[in-house]
Amino acid sequence: MEHRMKTEGERFVKTGGGDMNDPIGSHSEEKAHLFAVDNGLDVAATRLHGSYKALLNDPDMDAIYLPLPTSLHVRWAAAATTRGKHVLLDKPTTLCAADLDAILAAYMKGAPLSNEDFLENDISIKPDLDALGALGDVGWYCIRAILWAVDYELPKTVIALRDPVKNQAGVLLACGATLYWADGKTATFSCSFLTNVTMDITLVGTNGTIHVTDFVIPHEERPAEFHVASKSSFAELDIGWDLPSKHVVATDLPQEALMVQEFARLVQGIRDAGGKPEGKTQLALDAVKASIDKGSEPVEVAS
Amino acid sequence: MEHRMKTEGERFVKTGGGDMNDPIGSHSEEKAHLFAVDNGLDVAATRLHGSYKALLNDPDMDAIYLPLPTSLHVRWAAAATTRGKHVLLDKPTTLCAADLDAILAAYMKGAPLSNEDFLENDISIKPDLDALGALGDVGWYCIRAILWAVDYELPKTVIALRDPVKNQAGVLLACGATLYWADGKTATFSCSFLTNVTMDITLVGTNGTIHVTDFVIPHEERPAEFHVASKSSFAELDIGWDLPSKHVVATDLPQEALMVQEFARLVQGIRDAGGKPEGKTQLALDAVKASIDKGSEPVEVAS
Repeated sequence: MEHRMKTEGERFVKTGGGDMNDPIGSHSEEKAHLFAVDNGLDVAATRLHGSYKALLNDPDMDAIYLPLPTSLHVRWAAAATTRGKHVLLDKPTTLCAADLDAILAAYMKGAPLSNEDFLENDISIKPDLDALGALGDVGWYCIRAILWAVDYELPKTVIALRDPVKNQAGVLLACGATLYWADGKTATFSCSFLTNVTMDITLVGTNGTIHVTDFVIPHEERPAEFHVASKSSFAELDIGWDLPSKHVVATDLPQEALMVQEFARLVQGIRDAGGKPEGKTQLALDAVKASIDKGSEPVEVAS
Repeated sequence: MEHRMKTEGERFVKTGGGDMNDPIGSHSEEKAHLFAVDNGLDVAATRLHGSYKALLNDPDMDAIYLPLPTSLHVRWAAAATTRGKHVLLDKPTTLCAADLDAILAAYMKGAPLSNEDFLENDISIKPDLDALGALGDVGWYCIRAILWAVDYELPKTVIALRDPVKNQAGVLLACGATLYWADGKTATFSCSFLTNVTMDITLVGTNGTIHVTDFVIPHEERPAEFHVASKSSFAELDIGWDLPSKHVVATDLPQEALMVQEFARLVQGIRDAGGKPEGKTQLALDAVKASIDKGSEPVEVAS
């Protein structure tokens, strides 16, 4: 699914809502027309744009979802921010926290990020330098899930697992890290393009254990399942110990629709209630990348 | 269960088979008698010994299971080996691989380990120096399960997680490590006396993922359950991806009885077929302990 979405993202920049009047943009009006037909949209009621810039200039569009290759994020986030749009970036938000800070600063000011010609030619946005690979893809989800588990408290230090695997171009194919908090909590994640798709997280606390097997892409669209064992203890030798109990959270909407709802909620919080976007996952990811680049030396997480 | 077994172990040295004629030894014949009554054994048909040494001198006993505190293992394994008995040691086998090597060498020669008076007074067997704590207890199981998963190939290097937790006496209450193999495989474990009892292992390979939630003590005595996801891939966006499938292995006997069967099989292999006991888990554990003692420096695993 991941790669399918990205492929589409390279062709289309589209708002995420379910409104049939959402505008569609592509490299040509013909392609935009084809997308509308392919997806069963009412072509007459849908505004089609023959370029991304035309789409971004559509005054009826408030916000866009950018499922583009990471190295194109600064460029297109800049183009959208310049035009006063809210932006939902696919993960990883950028190649490093400094790039994200630049986007966030421009976004909060509602100002152009910088000259678009500069961005076109800035080495930092060349597509062939997107070396985060597995770390920016599945690793991002791992870090985000870990931060969720600790109420978004940033770790103090991270140390990458040794011997990360890279391809010839230097793109990470497999890596991992242990995260350390000041109070003694630790978390280790491992992410890889080379293994069976695995989205398992085990959280162990003083009084309970939570286990989820699909923390990135849900196994099923509506019911979300997890297992909890609490104050586990041993029963008699012949009957073993407490079984973890299964919990199912039913959702009214598919989880992708919930993501768009959450995006709308965040935009509303920023627009109406003085909220600020946060970049904690990117900060932790930067530290992991730095530790990888330093041969698994400990790296302090910037805060 | 763990602690209950150990408490019993301090009072009783008992053979593991289910035979009603098994001998029982304790600090006094009265205590041995009480144990037989408590456990519903036929007292008249059971030989009761008023000391461990009397028990070890019983010529009808081939093998003993020693669920004693680790620091007493060398002493009692020596006493048993001296008398030509096979020994099943509770984990960790000893405080370090050197002690285990001494036991194994004596065992293979069928010779006394050394002078028992020396052992009484050797600082290495003082009970108050059993500092392995959580590492020797739940950590042992973690390492053994990991070695099982890699067909018992020893890792090349181990690096302890930072900031292990110790009590005032220096006993490990929580620690962990990452194990590295020469071919790039890695495994991380975390073991603790301070968290909810958790016996979760997730194994991720190129083509599949295995998950077990009770790899130390079975949730249920007879059926052993695990989950497998193989060649996982994403289905359509609206229906999610492949669910892991649940597998159940039914066993004829409770798992503790299977352990005794396995012990008998190993003894037979050594006695009749030239087999040798192996100490790989202890070697890996020694390396983890050394890395902990060196502030999480990498430590090569002896082979």
